[in-house]
Amino acid sequence: MTPHFSQWMTGSGPEADIVLSSRIRLARNMAGQPFPHRMTAEQAERLLEDVSAAVKELQSGWQIDFRRLDQVTPVERQLLVEKHLVSPLLVQEPIRYQAVAIDQRESISIMVNEEDHLRIQVLLPGLQLDEAWKVADTIDDALESRLDYAYDEQSGYLTAWPTNLGTGLRASVMLHLPALVLTRQAAQVFTALAQVGIVVRGLYGEGSEALGNIFQVSNQVSLGLTEEEIVHNLTVVTQQIIGRERQARAHLMAAEQLLLADRVGRAWGILTNAKVMTSAEALRLLSDVSLGHDLSLLEAPMPFTFAQLAFMTRPSYLETEAGHPLSAVDRDQMRAETLRRHLLGKTL
Amino acid sequence: MTPHFSQWMTGSGPEADIVLSSRIRLARNMAGQPFPHRMTAEQAERLLEDVSAAVKELQSGWQIDFRRLDQVTPVERQLLVEKHLVSPLLVQEPIRYQAVAIDQRESISIMVNEEDHLRIQVLLPGLQLDEAWKVADTIDDALESRLDYAYDEQSGYLTAWPTNLGTGLRASVMLHLPALVLTRQAAQVFTALAQVGIVVRGLYGEGSEALGNIFQVSNQVSLGLTEEEIVHNLTVVTQQIIGRERQARAHLMAAEQLLLADRVGRAWGILTNAKVMTSAEALRLLSDVSLGHDLSLLEAPMPFTFAQLAFMTRPSYLETEAGHPLSAVDRDQMRAETLRRHLLGKTL
Repeated sequence: MTPHFSQWMTGSGPEADIVLSSRIRLARNMAGQPFPHRMTAEQAERLLEDVSAAVKELQSGWQIDFRRLDQVTPVERQLLVEKHLVSPLLVQEPIRYQAVAIDQRESISIMVNEEDHLRIQVLLPGLQLDEAWKVADTIDDALESRLDYAYDEQSGYLTAWPTNLGTGLRASVMLHLPALVLTRQAAQVFTALAQVGIVVRGLYGEGSEALGNIFQVSNQVSLGLTEEEIVHNLTVVTQQIIGRERQARAHLMAAEQLLLADRVGRAWGILTNAKVMTSAEALRLLSDVSLGHDLSLLEAPMPFTFAQLAFMTRPSYLETEAGHPLSAVDRDQMRAETLRRHLLGKTL
Repeated sequence: MTPHFSQWMTGSGPEADIVLSSRIRLARNMAGQPFPHRMTAEQAERLLEDVSAAVKELQSGWQIDFRRLDQVTPVERQLLVEKHLVSPLLVQEPIRYQAVAIDQRESISIMVNEEDHLRIQVLLPGLQLDEAWKVADTIDDALESRLDYAYDEQSGYLTAWPTNLGTGLRASVMLHLPALVLTRQAAQVFTALAQVGIVVRGLYGEGSEALGNIFQVSNQVSLGLTEEEIVHNLTVVTQQIIGRERQARAHLMAAEQLLLADRVGRAWGILTNAKVMTSAEALRLLSDVSLGHDLSLLEAPMPFTFAQLAFMTRPSYLETEAGHPLSAVDRDQMRAETLRRHLLGKTL
């Protein structure tokens, strides 16, 4: 069975050649209840029921699918993580009183009993932080009218981790920055960002390694600023990064177009002819091909977005498509076949 | 102008998947004349005239084109070297009294005033040492009836270098041995050959490096054996090497077919998509593609032989096709374009 794509992977929205997605996440907890890691089984079960009831009342407006995670298979849970609809933390064993509500377009997800009692997340394609914030705020208001949030005049929303105190808001964007990496400017740009409270992480890499030149850029603190200020600040910072990436792309096109076209061509050639491929290599080559597409250096059409193709490299995608678990070698073979078939547009 | 191919590059003949070509070369000198490196201008000019006259008398039978090398452009001279029709030594500056006679199929070449006064070479596709020897012997007899060869009862034919004394015969085969290299057996096989008087050289590499896994295997001494014995010995040795290469190919197909198919696919993908390519990389990838073709692992048809494609990587081929000298960068670009176009069968 081929997994379907989330709406945020469609590559639409402003600046979508560089901004793969925009995300807003709100952390909320119930008054008078211990945080999830300190709850008893009865407390967790009770809270899940209360929150579930409130979320289900939203359903008429949002067409939300509500699932207890202990009733979802491990590979489906991993698929949700790789679509960024739930956090890796939510699917760690043992899973007992956790749940997630997801809308049909997979733009909205509401996690229950993760680090906080409630996390509301909105994920949109391109640079749409403000739009995502408005959707999250509407859902938050609707739930707040049905639930008793833990809120303190001085600290704002109370959260399990102090870094989320205040607005409980984390805003982030997922950026494809191949030209900043190729021109060796990425480290310098990210150091400057750290000084203004912006965190940059590689998306799929261990530690600071950014596979596929994909970076997640987010606000570090949520205390002392309004939600609108946080969203506005990150939007401005993102626009600055986009400007730097565009400059770097223009420089490469002016100074090294032949070498760039060679790099893009080779990446396409390998992706459409290899028989075995690791995830790390696939993301590296897809980044090159995607950059080539953006700069009109790619001779073939690119029938899927970078976000969709990157999703196809993930083990849970491949195991879902295969219909059974795969050994590491079989997975590398399935990955090569899947990317090849999809890039050549042979089938969905 | 696209250079044409020599007959030996056609990939016909026995064992042609492994034996690119078979070569016989006879060294002959005229009695009572100094060797070429000791001749005066007058002596060299006179000898060139005498030998030319004898060679031209062969023309009715052989359709031989006779050229003084000082009347051939440097790029054309280099093209003759890369077709293996003349030795690199023959085209070294200054060129004054040297000449070469070549038949229409470019199987026969007769060099005048190289290291020896006369070198008769016959080059055929596949394993055809005996056939090549018979052609060379016929030409040798025809010339000997018109010229006064330096011959000594004890030493045989007198030659400028002692290693050519005796029969003056050098037999060699050009072999494509990718599986022996991949399975790391090549060094061991070549060491064993050295012990029975067989020399192995990389064809296009510096020193012992064999670009494209192409090796030239030849007899080391020509004294103390008859011509027939030399030709027979090298044929037997070549058949043994072929057997080892076939075993190694079978082993790879049985034990590592997926990895081999991956290697072949990637080589094809890069060759048909790169925009810049060095000669060393091109030969390495062409070797992989050629092996893939031999083992039916290549999905696309291979419209040219390995020998033809290897010839296309050479600077003189590319400069002839371009019609003007090329910088190193332009050559790497022209090489990538040329190989791509020919592999995709877009044109001759």
